[in-house]
Amino acid sequence: MQGGDGVVVGLGGGGGGEEEQVVNPWEVSAKDGGKIDYDKLIEKFGCQRLDDSLIRRVERLTSRTAHVFLRRGVFFAHRDFNEILDVYEKGEKFYLYTGRGPSSEALHLGHLIPFMFTKYLQDAFKVPLVIQLTDDEKCMWKNLSVEESQRLARENAKDIIACGFDVTRTFIFSDFDYVGGAFYKNMVKVAKCVTFNKVVGIFGFTPEDHIGKISFPPVQAVPSFPSSFPHLFAGKDNLRCLIPCAIDQDPYFRMTRDVAPRLGYQKPALIESSFFPALQGENGKMSASDPNSAIYVTDTAKDIKTKINRYAFSGGQDSIENHRKYGANLEVDIPIKYLGFFLEDDDELEHIRKEYGSGRMLTGEVKKRLIEVLTELVERHRKARAAVTDEMVDAFMAVRPFHICLLKDSKS
Amino acid sequence: MQGGDGVVVGLGGGGGGEEEQVVNPWEVSAKDGGKIDYDKLIEKFGCQRLDDSLIRRVERLTSRTAHVFLRRGVFFAHRDFNEILDVYEKGEKFYLYTGRGPSSEALHLGHLIPFMFTKYLQDAFKVPLVIQLTDDEKCMWKNLSVEESQRLARENAKDIIACGFDVTRTFIFSDFDYVGGAFYKNMVKVAKCVTFNKVVGIFGFTPEDHIGKISFPPVQAVPSFPSSFPHLFAGKDNLRCLIPCAIDQDPYFRMTRDVAPRLGYQKPALIESSFFPALQGENGKMSASDPNSAIYVTDTAKDIKTKINRYAFSGGQDSIENHRKYGANLEVDIPIKYLGFFLEDDDELEHIRKEYGSGRMLTGEVKKRLIEVLTELVERHRKARAAVTDEMVDAFMAVRPFHICLLKDSKS
Repeated sequence: MQGGDGVVVGLGGGGGGEEEQVVNPWEVSAKDGGKIDYDKLIEKFGCQRLDDSLIRRVERLTSRTAHVFLRRGVFFAHRDFNEILDVYEKGEKFYLYTGRGPSSEALHLGHLIPFMFTKYLQDAFKVPLVIQLTDDEKCMWKNLSVEESQRLARENAKDIIACGFDVTRTFIFSDFDYVGGAFYKNMVKVAKCVTFNKVVGIFGFTPEDHIGKISFPPVQAVPSFPSSFPHLFAGKDNLRCLIPCAIDQDPYFRMTRDVAPRLGYQKPALIESSFFPALQGENGKMSASDPNSAIYVTDTAKDIKTKINRYAFSGGQDSIENHRKYGANLEVDIPIKYLGFFLEDDDELEHIRKEYGSGRMLTGEVKKRLIEVLTELVERHRKARAAVTDEMVDAFMAVRPFHICLLKDSKS
Repeated sequence: MQGGDGVVVGLGGGGGGEEEQVVNPWEVSAKDGGKIDYDKLIEKFGCQRLDDSLIRRVERLTSRTAHVFLRRGVFFAHRDFNEILDVYEKGEKFYLYTGRGPSSEALHLGHLIPFMFTKYLQDAFKVPLVIQLTDDEKCMWKNLSVEESQRLARENAKDIIACGFDVTRTFIFSDFDYVGGAFYKNMVKVAKCVTFNKVVGIFGFTPEDHIGKISFPPVQAVPSFPSSFPHLFAGKDNLRCLIPCAIDQDPYFRMTRDVAPRLGYQKPALIESSFFPALQGENGKMSASDPNSAIYVTDTAKDIKTKINRYAFSGGQDSIENHRKYGANLEVDIPIKYLGFFLEDDDELEHIRKEYGSGRMLTGEVKKRLIEVLTELVERHRKARAAVTDEMVDAFMAVRPFHICLLKDSKS
């Protein structure tokens, strides 16, 4: 909505000549079936690259090593994240907001990424967190029934809780349960500021779309404003908000940031990730209709082994001879990419990259290590999820005040 | 949305050649500044004329004389009102739904008409009633603040309560307070069924309109469904709904009736009124910016006298001589029209029409009688409103179950 904001990128086709990459909340596709050009995305969306100095500042402020997803550029872009750190440095708090559209029962590893990262941010900064489950969105886009959307929201909440959030600082809500009151008032305030033409420009809606879709952007916008949660943030209407999310969600928050000053609200800050690649490669798609395109948190050790060995796209050469001679192409190799997300030991990762890239290590060996890492990750998640009771879900979703200090000088 | 439904009438201009009359929730204007052609409206909207046999059936079923507004054709059109009477005749209940957009502090007589009529229906049929105050709509259309819209809603609620509704059967709600839960779920269900193109056809929205306007029709639609009020109608999801309203609201309910079967819901029935004329005549406009265009419930006896004498358009002749000779033109005479709404005595009204139409009675005499009638009406309203306490408003607006029997065989 601001000057240079993603009018070309973000639209589902149309427009002039050259086929552009499409990145919006419902479609991610690269130009000519290639890789997403993230530099171009940053430029088109008008966000900023998350550079090393910012990462070092995070480490300094939190007195801990930056998360793997920060160190390795998974979260690579931001909007005003530096302002959030300014606020924090002054001894003030902010809050985190992230979410999920509950369209499927089982989450895959890509789904876990924002939650794993948000859990790190919550621990490192000791801040409150709201997690929106957009069951209304999925009911509308996926044509699910209200009941099924709500059921999926609750199932997904269990996976989210299994990521280890602190119940005293975390409020999980389903739109169908929570929309109303101050939240609805903010929806109306936002909706007043955005024309149909604007949402066409931002989201690529068409006149054939139903008005449920056209009504939805304010629902995802308003958790950016603390006044939408009077029970949590009463009297703290200037509390800054930081949104960790995948960059395909940026259009919602461009809109939100454009509207905020007109409502007298603070703009939310963002920290944005790239996309987690499909097993078949960066130009592949993780698709609910193809279970072999992703590792799910419900996969067994055997599933994981089979999927990695059979489907994970390899950058290794076609014969052992050639591999020893030329080494693996790490740019396209999925096992290396996945290890980049989930193998925490920097030294070991570097070692594997070197050995594999030079041809001394074979694809099979790298895959074996990846299978170990993912099996352990998925097993840990499965155990954590099994321990999530209905009472715990109720506790996270209860509309209640946070009993934590949001005042100045409360960093500890 | 159905075949012949008001695509020409109902649009704010545009379209082919001839300038049509425009009737939608935000604009009522006749062709060439003349009178609204109600026959044409019925035909275009696809509703039915409320004929004498239906009125007689109402009298038979309720064992009382039909309300003046029925006898004299103020409520002149309907949709499926006969089905509501069928249901009632079988000993079952239905519920009433009406509403108001709280855009001004003081109501004028035109605003009272649907409420006076709804009060009669509630008394005659002993049925529950929900009254929606669309403070969200007015916040969006009139660009009022949320707070001011809510204040006006509460002020207007006092005038509505002053009409004499039965608190044990009447739930008044403000959208800003009440939207959420089952109500919001129904909003999403309705929104899924209506495209942007459809609302353009029904309401005349344009791409320059903000998405708040485009999101609103489902908000006014869903009180037509008992499942939107689980505390009132739990388990009675098939309860029929009857909506008394002015015919400019018909577009909302054409949309609602189109959508209902797809959601497995009953279509609401409607009983629709013509428009109350301005003091300046049927082609004049009652306008909040011209206080002399209408009698307000806050007007003093002196205001009423002055307004009627000075501004009420007379069908009398330009000299006493001509008047005695030709008589008054009752077709355009506002005092006679107003007496038609508010003078209850049929014989007296008939007498005045005859005497005035033949020239034996002068405009001044008719106006004098009208001043008496309206002064008494307004004085009665003022007293009733003064007796409405904040506690009473709270009682009408409390989210609570109705303690009345909605079962079969509960006519009494």
